[in-house]
This record gives sequence, C-alpha cells and structure tokens, in this order.
Amino acid sequence: MIVVHHLNQSRSQRVLWLLEELGLPYEIAYYERDDRNMAPEALREIHPLGKSPVIRDDGRVIAESGAIIDYIVRRHGGGRLRPPESDGLYEDYVYWLHYAEGSAVTPFIIKPIAQSFGKMATPLRRRVDWEMDLNLRFIDQSLSNRPYLLGDDLTAADIQMSFVGELAAASANIGEYPNIDRWVRRFQDRTAYKAAIERGGYYKFQR
Amino acid sequence: MIVVHHLNQSRSQRVLWLLEELGLPYEIAYYERDDRNMAPEALREIHPLGKSPVIRDDGRVIAESGAIIDYIVRRHGGGRLRPPESDGLYEDYVYWLHYAEGSAVTPFIIKPIAQSFGKMATPLRRRVDWEMDLNLRFIDQSLSNRPYLLGDDLTAADIQMSFVGELAAASANIGEYPNIDRWVRRFQDRTAYKAAIERGGYYKFQR
Repeated sequence: MIVVHHLNQSRSQRVLWLLEELGLPYEIAYYERDDRNMAPEALREIHPLGKSPVIRDDGRVIAESGAIIDYIVRRHGGGRLRPPESDGLYEDYVYWLHYAEGSAVTPFIIKPIAQSFGKMATPLRRRVDWEMDLNLRFIDQSLSNRPYLLGDDLTAADIQMSFVGELAAASANIGEYPNIDRWVRRFQDRTAYKAAIERGGYYKFQR
Repeated sequence: MIVVHHLNQSRSQRVLWLLEELGLPYEIAYYERDDRNMAPEALREIHPLGKSPVIRDDGRVIAESGAIIDYIVRRHGGGRLRPPESDGLYEDYVYWLHYAEGSAVTPFIIKPIAQSFGKMATPLRRRVDWEMDLNLRFIDQSLSNRPYLLGDDLTAADIQMSFVGELAAASANIGEYPNIDRWVRRFQDRTAYKAAIERGGYYKFQR
C-alpha cells in the first residue's frame, strides 16, 4: 500500500488528489509545519531533504512532486490520466509535469521575498510581476479552448499544475486570467478532489 | 534534424552536450543575452515564454530542460543514457530529471537576490545557505561511491543535474563537497562535453 508522507498546506495535497482520482488505496503519515512554517525535522528521517511530498511504495521512497506523479501514473494508473506514449499529446503531458515546479512556481516563491524588502525591492518586484504575468498568460491561453490542459479530460498534468493554479487563484488579480479561474473552480469541484481534502485536512487554497 | 534554440551561458548548453553524447545531428540557432543579461525578445517567437533551451524537432516545439532531455533520450536515444523502465534505477533517473530544476537550483536563484539586499537580508541569506548546503550534501552523498549519479555510466540524469553541479563548482565552498567537485571535473573532461562547448561557444562554467 502506498504511504504518503503528507505535510499540511503543501504540495502533497495534490498527491492525495491523484490517488483519489485513480481510486487507489493509500495511507497518510501526517506532519504539521513548525513555528517557522517549515516542514518538521521528522520528515528528514524519510528522505534526507526533509520535504513533502514523499511517498513510500513497495519498499521504495520517492520524492519530488513531478517524479511521484509520474511514478504513480506509470506504475499504478493502468493507462489512465495520461495520453499514451505514442500520442503527440504525451510530449505536452511531460512538459506540464516539468514546467510546474521547474518554471511556473518560481515567481510565486520570489514574490513574497521581494515584498518583504519593501521599497528597496521595487525593481525586483516589477521584474517578478512581469515574469508571473508572462507565465499566467501562457497558462490561461493554454486553457482558452478546453476544460483541462490536454483537452476534454483531466490528466495528471492538471494535478501537477494545480498548485500553481491555486496560487494564482489566491492572488488579487486572478480576474485577469479567467480561464485559470474557471479551471481551478472546475477541478476543485471534482469528487476526488474533495475526497482528498477530506482525508488531507484543512487546505487554505480550497475556494 | 533537431534545432536547438541556444542562449549563450545558459541551461541550453547541456542540451548540446546530450546531443553530442548521442552522436545525433543537430543545428543551433544562436541567441545572445541582452544588456540586462536576459534572453532576447526573439526567443518569444519560438515559444511564448521566451526561454532557452527550446528545441524544434519534426514540427514540434519543446521547452523546459527536463522535458527536452526526456524527449531526446526517449525518442532518439535508442535505449542509451537511461536505465530501462523495468529497472528500479529508472525511478532514480526520473527523480534527478525533476529534482534538478524543481528543487536543487532554487537556492542558487534566491542567493544572489538575498545578497543584493545586504545586511537587511541576513536571515534570508542564512536560510538559503542552509538550504543550499542541505541539497549539496545530499548530492555529494549520492556521488560518494560511484562516478555518476546512477552508477558507473553517465546517464541523462547527470546531464540534467550538471547545471546545478557547475553552479556549485563555481562557489567558494566547493571544497566541502569533494564528490561533486570530482564529478564536475569528470564530466567536463568528456569528449562530447568539450565538443558541445566547441559548438555552443564560450561557457563560463567550464573549468
């Protein structure tokens, strides 16, 4: 049985969602953020980097959201939630899996840093806002004529990208990206998404 | 023929290296950083995000280092430079492809930002140094009893991780991570690596 080492309010929520979409049995090992809003030391006993999500399956420990999602879908998905490798869409699938944490999330990490330095950081803040807008327009455009990133059906690409979508939806200017807004509402309304929240615990990004 | 849209001094150098390791024919479209050290506008005609690397192959445009490397190895590698999917090592391969840009590079992006704010940013700098050290010790440990990340032979996992290794090797405290130091020297000494530099142009991270 897959064990998800799950930190509250974190990227691991989407792993629970994926497992619910696939209807796979799983267990959750719960961790709470410490006083500094960081992952607790105990997570470093599971994986040296001490981050969440980490899963354990069949004696193997796997970290890094993109790798975990790729693993679960490939090993346990039975062909669901991804295009077949022979399909041209498969390349888009791989792209979104990498893009989410490799590029799209970066401005969301840097923005609060820039904000914490006040006026001194105005040039950095402008640069980050520009970069964030470039990325969000790109994602919004990708969703302009389809309900999910790869077409009519949800895939694990949406699940991997959902964290970025939820960060965007929590921003003041989400109105500028109406397709992202609708996409987040659409996937948060799914039965499996809600079941994952039920098991994972309070999640501030749920709308 | 694969066309690599190549920005000088960037993550795209490793795509050239991969192509040289595989002995594949390719063309380079060259771009130079602008006055602000950023990618030029022209790259946005290739892909809306205007980043490098981007490749074009068979009418398809692919961005994001991890996705490009996955694509080239899967479609054109003929089984080389990666473990077979049936091998347990395949999961480590996928992990390194995601970890490089998803986690390992982040402290290297934030550190110069923290430095630019001087004394005010001391707590942030300490936090970033701690995070960077945690990651570099993990990578160093992973290389403690083998020449390459997955064992005796170079794989595309090393190529994807090479940018992080080179950033680390350019730091003052690389002496604390002797296995990373040796690994970078080892891969930079490869014929294919040197051939890629020859074609890509001056690369400040070559030692």
